[in-house]
Amino acid sequence: EKTAGFDPLRKVLADRLERDGVPMPKDEKERINSVTIVTGSQQALFTITNILIDPGDIVITPAPVYLGMLGPLGMHQANIITVPTDEHGIIPEFVEKAIGKAIEKFRRIPDFIYVISDADNPKGTTLPVKRRKQLYEIAVKYKILIVEDAAYRDIYFGGEKLPPIKSFDKNNEYVAYLRTTSKEAAVLRVGYCVLPRPIVDEFIKSKGYQDLCTSVISQVLLKEYYEKWIDKVLPKAVEEYKRRCKTMIESVNQYFPPGFHTKPQGGFFVWYESDKRGFNASSFLENVALKNNVNYVPGAAFYPVESLGYYYNPDNNEIERIKFPLNTMRLSYSLLPPEDISEGIKLLGKLLNEHLK
Amino acid sequence: EKTAGFDPLRKVLADRLERDGVPMPKDEKERINSVTIVTGSQQALFTITNILIDPGDIVITPAPVYLGMLGPLGMHQANIITVPTDEHGIIPEFVEKAIGKAIEKFRRIPDFIYVISDADNPKGTTLPVKRRKQLYEIAVKYKILIVEDAAYRDIYFGGEKLPPIKSFDKNNEYVAYLRTTSKEAAVLRVGYCVLPRPIVDEFIKSKGYQDLCTSVISQVLLKEYYEKWIDKVLPKAVEEYKRRCKTMIESVNQYFPPGFHTKPQGGFFVWYESDKRGFNASSFLENVALKNNVNYVPGAAFYPVESLGYYYNPDNNEIERIKFPLNTMRLSYSLLPPEDISEGIKLLGKLLNEHLK
Repeated sequence: EKTAGFDPLRKVLADRLERDGVPMPKDEKERINSVTIVTGSQQALFTITNILIDPGDIVITPAPVYLGMLGPLGMHQANIITVPTDEHGIIPEFVEKAIGKAIEKFRRIPDFIYVISDADNPKGTTLPVKRRKQLYEIAVKYKILIVEDAAYRDIYFGGEKLPPIKSFDKNNEYVAYLRTTSKEAAVLRVGYCVLPRPIVDEFIKSKGYQDLCTSVISQVLLKEYYEKWIDKVLPKAVEEYKRRCKTMIESVNQYFPPGFHTKPQGGFFVWYESDKRGFNASSFLENVALKNNVNYVPGAAFYPVESLGYYYNPDNNEIERIKFPLNTMRLSYSLLPPEDISEGIKLLGKLLNEHLK
Repeated sequence: EKTAGFDPLRKVLADRLERDGVPMPKDEKERINSVTIVTGSQQALFTITNILIDPGDIVITPAPVYLGMLGPLGMHQANIITVPTDEHGIIPEFVEKAIGKAIEKFRRIPDFIYVISDADNPKGTTLPVKRRKQLYEIAVKYKILIVEDAAYRDIYFGGEKLPPIKSFDKNNEYVAYLRTTSKEAAVLRVGYCVLPRPIVDEFIKSKGYQDLCTSVISQVLLKEYYEKWIDKVLPKAVEEYKRRCKTMIESVNQYFPPGFHTKPQGGFFVWYESDKRGFNASSFLENVALKNNVNYVPGAAFYPVESLGYYYNPDNNEIERIKFPLNTMRLSYSLLPPEDISEGIKLLGKLLNEHLK
């Protein structure tokens, strides 16, 4: 029981999750047991992979995909099939086609679909309600788990929040819903999740083997914070992120060479793709940007390695060895105040324009 | 770098470890890098297993062995060869013979030898210096890692501490030395270890996949505690454990039926074996002890499951399927004050005497 978390915190989180659209049982004990505490949501990603993936098993992810998911998948030697995304995130039609092709090619049903619905890392995109519903229907149709990583759920400035994919999963069967406290209280390393009944016992057992339980002092602090303080403190922080995001988008529009960029409604990141397909953002970082004291993460970091990575190609409806463009970058607006963001983007834009002219 | 821990804490711990007999480099940066922070020493046990063990690989442990080691070993499907222990802990002569027989039987070199040198869990035994040296020599001779779990190192009341096995490992090659803060500061979930060079990078990578890093707030608190407070606070706690241990041993001598028990010099546990070989401590717990509000852990909990467990039998010098006596119990003196310990042991002794007469 201690492995699954500190009950008073689980209770507070269950109530909050229900207000946020996550189906919760009425019975108090069942509510508490619905929430599993983890040592950061990274532990949830690791543990789900650890209990579900044998070498050669299949996982579906967006292209590009959160780096923290790629580590555990690589360690467990999953075949990672990446699916195209656009300015609204992963495209459900291609997810379904990729599943069909994966079954043909690998003779295995994918074990799970990984997705960040709200303010994706790295792209900053938010899935529209229609796509959320479509993904849920695909999960039910093929009996495949969705791992809905809602790490940025609390950092949302796009108006009314959209219902999580988890909201459709009334009987707690198909969606593992992952949340974290790390975007407001990073030093505490506490995440929490609602896990479908078929996997929860195995998950807790594996977590126990890993670290017995999550820091109790962190959980006691967070119980106080989530019960009494978060709703007073968080809106100010979110307002500030919104300001920083706005500044970054305006600066990119003003100073960057022609290309596509996302317009986040939350989270920490803008994704930029240069119109010049031949542009290599990794070598530009090393040879130009860092030398001028500007930093970003090249998009190449968010794709699986060649030995495990695949790509669903909608042009020919085939699963191919991973390939991805090198002309992309993840720009972060979370750390610096607006003045520094506009200065940095201005400088980076100038360097890019010189380099690409 | 953050994954390996908070540098100021690593520095404080490196200095303490050196004073405690662990070889440390002179260079400050190297000293810091010698100490890896983990989310409880359970994470070290899991991670070492995770990076070294493939299904069917071999690990040598004492019989009985700490329960927290058995979980990760079982999950990774290690073959667990248990080796006889006496009132001083694991017997090196049999460790060496078991290694030889394991190589014959399984055609694999064991990946590591697991041992708790100081105040073992569950037996409460402390390895004499001679055995520590012998184990180190076996490790060097066969090039096998020793995982020296020093969880109870700080809870020692037997006079001058003995040098850790790690103290012989001058070049940091053969001994992974695991320490924890959990015996004094359980709520923080922080352990630390000195890992041999051949495994440290892989270890940190795996830890990163599991939880990115250990709670920073816990590490900051512990840095203060280990720098300024522990040496003022800990001696009083250790004195109290000594008093409780003494009470338990006296009470067992006075009230228990004939049998063997250990005489711990530290830690939390006394191990008792009834002279009646047919006594079943598990069913006695369920049917008698719990109904009378006395609790202990039956010794059977500290052996591997039949599918993975083996036993080195010195009588015929063979490795056999696991078998173990059921007439044993682990008695804990850590939680209750002396009055309650003597009352509990008196009651348990009375029940045992009635049951075994």
